[in-house]
Amino acid sequence: MPGLRAPTRGRYNLLDRVALPADLKNFSIDQLQTLADELRSETVDAVSSTGGHLGASLGVIELTVALHAVFDTPQDRLIWDVSHQAYPHKILTGRRDGIRTLRQPGGLSGFTQRAESPYDPFGAGHSSTSISAGLGMAVANKLRTKQDRHEPARNVVAVIGDGSISAGMAYEALNNAGGLKEGAERLIVILNDNEMSIAPPVGAMSNYLSRLMSSRRFMTLRDLAGNLASKLPSQLHRTAKKAEEYARGMLTGGTFFEEMGFYYIGPVDGHDLNQLVPILRNLKTQDERGPVLLHVVTRKGHGYDPAERAADKYHAVAKFDIATGIQKKTVSPVPTYTDVFARELERLAQEDPCVVAVTAAMPKSTGLQPMADRFPDRVFDVGIAEQHAVTFSAGMACEGMKPFCAIYSTFLQRAFDQVMHDVALQNLPVRFMVDRAGMVGADGATHAGSFDLNYLCCLPNMTVMAPADEAELAHMVATAYAHDSGPTAVRYPRGAGVGTPLPAKGEVLEIGRGRIVHTPQKPQGKQRVALLSLGTRLAEALKAAELLEAEGVAVTVADARFAKPIDQALIDRLASENDVLITLEEGAAGGFSSQVLQRLASTGGLDQVRFRPMNLPDAWIEHNTPAAQYEQAGLTAPHIAQTARKALGGGKA
Amino acid sequence: MPGLRAPTRGRYNLLDRVALPADLKNFSIDQLQTLADELRSETVDAVSSTGGHLGASLGVIELTVALHAVFDTPQDRLIWDVSHQAYPHKILTGRRDGIRTLRQPGGLSGFTQRAESPYDPFGAGHSSTSISAGLGMAVANKLRTKQDRHEPARNVVAVIGDGSISAGMAYEALNNAGGLKEGAERLIVILNDNEMSIAPPVGAMSNYLSRLMSSRRFMTLRDLAGNLASKLPSQLHRTAKKAEEYARGMLTGGTFFEEMGFYYIGPVDGHDLNQLVPILRNLKTQDERGPVLLHVVTRKGHGYDPAERAADKYHAVAKFDIATGIQKKTVSPVPTYTDVFARELERLAQEDPCVVAVTAAMPKSTGLQPMADRFPDRVFDVGIAEQHAVTFSAGMACEGMKPFCAIYSTFLQRAFDQVMHDVALQNLPVRFMVDRAGMVGADGATHAGSFDLNYLCCLPNMTVMAPADEAELAHMVATAYAHDSGPTAVRYPRGAGVGTPLPAKGEVLEIGRGRIVHTPQKPQGKQRVALLSLGTRLAEALKAAELLEAEGVAVTVADARFAKPIDQALIDRLASENDVLITLEEGAAGGFSSQVLQRLASTGGLDQVRFRPMNLPDAWIEHNTPAAQYEQAGLTAPHIAQTARKALGGGKA
Repeated sequence: MPGLRAPTRGRYNLLDRVALPADLKNFSIDQLQTLADELRSETVDAVSSTGGHLGASLGVIELTVALHAVFDTPQDRLIWDVSHQAYPHKILTGRRDGIRTLRQPGGLSGFTQRAESPYDPFGAGHSSTSISAGLGMAVANKLRTKQDRHEPARNVVAVIGDGSISAGMAYEALNNAGGLKEGAERLIVILNDNEMSIAPPVGAMSNYLSRLMSSRRFMTLRDLAGNLASKLPSQLHRTAKKAEEYARGMLTGGTFFEEMGFYYIGPVDGHDLNQLVPILRNLKTQDERGPVLLHVVTRKGHGYDPAERAADKYHAVAKFDIATGIQKKTVSPVPTYTDVFARELERLAQEDPCVVAVTAAMPKSTGLQPMADRFPDRVFDVGIAEQHAVTFSAGMACEGMKPFCAIYSTFLQRAFDQVMHDVALQNLPVRFMVDRAGMVGADGATHAGSFDLNYLCCLPNMTVMAPADEAELAHMVATAYAHDSGPTAVRYPRGAGVGTPLPAKGEVLEIGRGRIVHTPQKPQGKQRVALLSLGTRLAEALKAAELLEAEGVAVTVADARFAKPIDQALIDRLASENDVLITLEEGAAGGFSSQVLQRLASTGGLDQVRFRPMNLPDAWIEHNTPAAQYEQAGLTAPHIAQTARKALGGGKA
Repeated sequence: MPGLRAPTRGRYNLLDRVALPADLKNFSIDQLQTLADELRSETVDAVSSTGGHLGASLGVIELTVALHAVFDTPQDRLIWDVSHQAYPHKILTGRRDGIRTLRQPGGLSGFTQRAESPYDPFGAGHSSTSISAGLGMAVANKLRTKQDRHEPARNVVAVIGDGSISAGMAYEALNNAGGLKEGAERLIVILNDNEMSIAPPVGAMSNYLSRLMSSRRFMTLRDLAGNLASKLPSQLHRTAKKAEEYARGMLTGGTFFEEMGFYYIGPVDGHDLNQLVPILRNLKTQDERGPVLLHVVTRKGHGYDPAERAADKYHAVAKFDIATGIQKKTVSPVPTYTDVFARELERLAQEDPCVVAVTAAMPKSTGLQPMADRFPDRVFDVGIAEQHAVTFSAGMACEGMKPFCAIYSTFLQRAFDQVMHDVALQNLPVRFMVDRAGMVGADGATHAGSFDLNYLCCLPNMTVMAPADEAELAHMVATAYAHDSGPTAVRYPRGAGVGTPLPAKGEVLEIGRGRIVHTPQKPQGKQRVALLSLGTRLAEALKAAELLEAEGVAVTVADARFAKPIDQALIDRLASENDVLITLEEGAAGGFSSQVLQRLASTGGLDQVRFRPMNLPDAWIEHNTPAAQYEQAGLTAPHIAQTARKALGGGKA
């Protein structure tokens, strides 16, 4: 892997002796502490050369060591929620040699992946799935042990952050686990409370956890000796269990988690192996203990000064200098799409007090921060809660507000039902700002915005736009603002624009009207091709036009602007005036192309032109640069030109 | 409206005097009680002639009367979660004359609808949206009152059942509301605790509510006099509010809801207007009180003997005889699709101990009950928690179980992200049983299964089937069971099959292989049409073939069986051997037809045949009979024949 430093074997006394977690089993707690220090150093060193989610990983170094020292992974199942904190886990589970390929093309994923290692029993990327998956595993194991007494009983450990536990899905899983008669006995949920998801956490649960921490001192070993034994019913005390269950659920003194049917243990200092290891050993040896929630307090970025000092605790970093912590960020001379949306939104918010904005725990990365700084009472961070974010926006729209609901394409999937049922069906003017549409690079398939055109275009009443460049985005934000008679969505990619000069303010576009951006230089050409692009493939379409025109083909290039409603007149004209019509979109088949198909079929235009939809392929595209991902997807200029040539040849595309 | 009884004006002393809620304002509590009795009688009478969700409505008669007597609807916003309990609300809010058209073609919706009445500030159908919507309205009102001091402050009341509050979305909304600095002051959440959603409730929250109720006596008027005044901070006590907020959030004695930042009041007898009215009046007059949760205990079906005696409390009933409560159910001589799935699942569960099944609060209506009766430890009702249901299934699949996740098409929308991220991306063999696909009849647009082909076919790794009849469904359930190398989905409609004899056991179909069901009787016909049907439109396709063959057209009819992967060889053949190829599906554009388009475009076959996809239209289809809905959708035999004729004519379809 060019440009990546070699592994640092020979540098660490203890870490070098760990090939797999089994090697930790005979380490003393002092040795585990030394190992943790080495693991932290190795993690910082590796991420300094790859970039990635550093802060979260540094916060769980000791927890990672303790878990692998105590539990018998991979037979015991260890699930990391979101799993961007799993870098030290990867180093300890046989992937140290590859750790400097993290998030690099062909290298390790930045998240857990079942295909990557047996130590990754569940892949993640999106938050709040770990308790559900873990409960499924625990219940399955229970059934198997009942069916076959030789089947070993497994522990299942789900590590979830305090930000992630604010999502409804986590609550659904707690509710199910805490209410089960059997199956959750060996489920351990570790709440990794670092008071930080990506942004500082919000919501009542976060306030509650703060109170829980401030009202209790950390548990000590003495607490554990008596407390845990009495808390966890042993085999001998099974008969007393029912009574105890009733008691622990009573109203006085119960924590939220006890009310949800869990044994609550904590808070525990998550950086102190002298606490973590005995507690985990105790839990491991308890049989039939019922679901446990272990509340561990950690600090994101712990143990690496530059990270501890940074406001975001180095949540996600570029490559950086280890000594200074200074990141080697590429400074783009042109603004990102997110920046352009942010600027336009701030302008609209200043002009109209009815403009409000909603984010699900990502005020900075969605571009809401500038508006929040100026108009703090009109920007709502609802936590990791996309479902609520959408219906909350719908409620505001009912009262005449103009909500901008800014959620990444991949995360808006969480709220498809709310977009359909609460917004589109009621025809409420919620403006969805769908960032990170299309390929997203190093975050890979979990974070790709491949499906929003599918799940938005199928909804009646929905208007869906995609800008070809950053100036177009400004216009579309203004258009969404002005469109008060129904829902709108604007989908735009990650990263910098193409350098188009920005307008002083966005202009309101006519709904459902595209534009011709290139007419044939040789209109006399015998063979005529139309390229109808939605979104930022337009640049590739223009390059493809050059390639084809050099071969004597007359090419018209159009920017659809709207995936829905489509520009029927434009499509009819392109179909009737050309031999081949190619649609381009940065999304899976069934979105924009399907809208065009419906029109062409209804007019019979489909019979007059060779229609060739170009979409993302029916495959998961792993982490890579976006350019390489689009190359792999077959959506670059040479692919477009080749599709046109084949269609002109009358045959297969 | 033929067959419906006329309204019963003149029958009721008080109800006849109520045109709108304002008419309740001067009623004494005794009069309100009489009105409630009359309203109950009228509700039973109306639903006896229309069918519908009776039990839930009977449980909230007194609550409905109390809310409209106290609050100034529609200026105060009253939101009914799910809203199948809103029949008495409709009667009191100017829709009594139409109440006997409930759920009938052209009549009132069975749910609240913004378009139907200003007294319905938010439409519903799916559960657990009311707190989110209500919070959005409350926050919007707060902003407006800050911007314009003439703007009236509104109360927002969200009534949500104990079943609905188990969904993650409700928790997300509570978490947001309880953590807000401002905006939720006038939000009142009424938890309507009837210990029953559709099935008996499950999960830790339900257990908790039971303990909460059993450990406290109902509040009395004396409690209210002192308790409420001290609980709710008045204007004068504003300075003490911060300290109190801290205190009420402390760990001892706090209820779950207090921990979530709400004032908890309750439990209150929801059938006693002497309690309800004073409490609601107190809440209404309190200013800046912070979000309140009022815990009201009711009995589903209350006050109508046959409903109270029934196990499901008359959750959803057909037309019935008022005196006896006997429902006039049409007994179909053929089993429903749900029955066929249930039978096949029970057989597979008996053969293979790895077969498990998951439902989100609907064990009976999804067909899991027969298996649950025989194998109770392998059927999991996780509550109204579709997101968790899917990832919980994925966790079981990781451990070698064979999970059948049975969720209606419209409700699986809630878990699209989990289907994508946790199942399809990891290629886990979860079997989705997608009941109520296509048009569903009287439940209308909120419950239509229009989009599952869109949100499932776009996912790599996913296999999607749709049976043409009930025997095919048996085969597809067997096929899903046998397909252990990735996820599968079978989508099938509501209601009875077509009478096809059922096989003793389902046969395993070849993945991605369709079948020809009709070959042209006049293969010499000059004009050739292929009808490629997915799902139960096959019967209409065969009828259309008859119509066309009578006109001398040679028609081939094929059953695709698989929406994904499609039968490429079959499609290539149909395209090359016919002048016109029509696809048929009971779903929105972009699903099956888009899969066919991709194949036809890639081979160039698209240029050889006139391709005409027939889908559900881009419009919301209101409640009606399924047959009438498909007529409206343009998916009947005459429509198909006409599409073929137009395409053969070379012109517009």
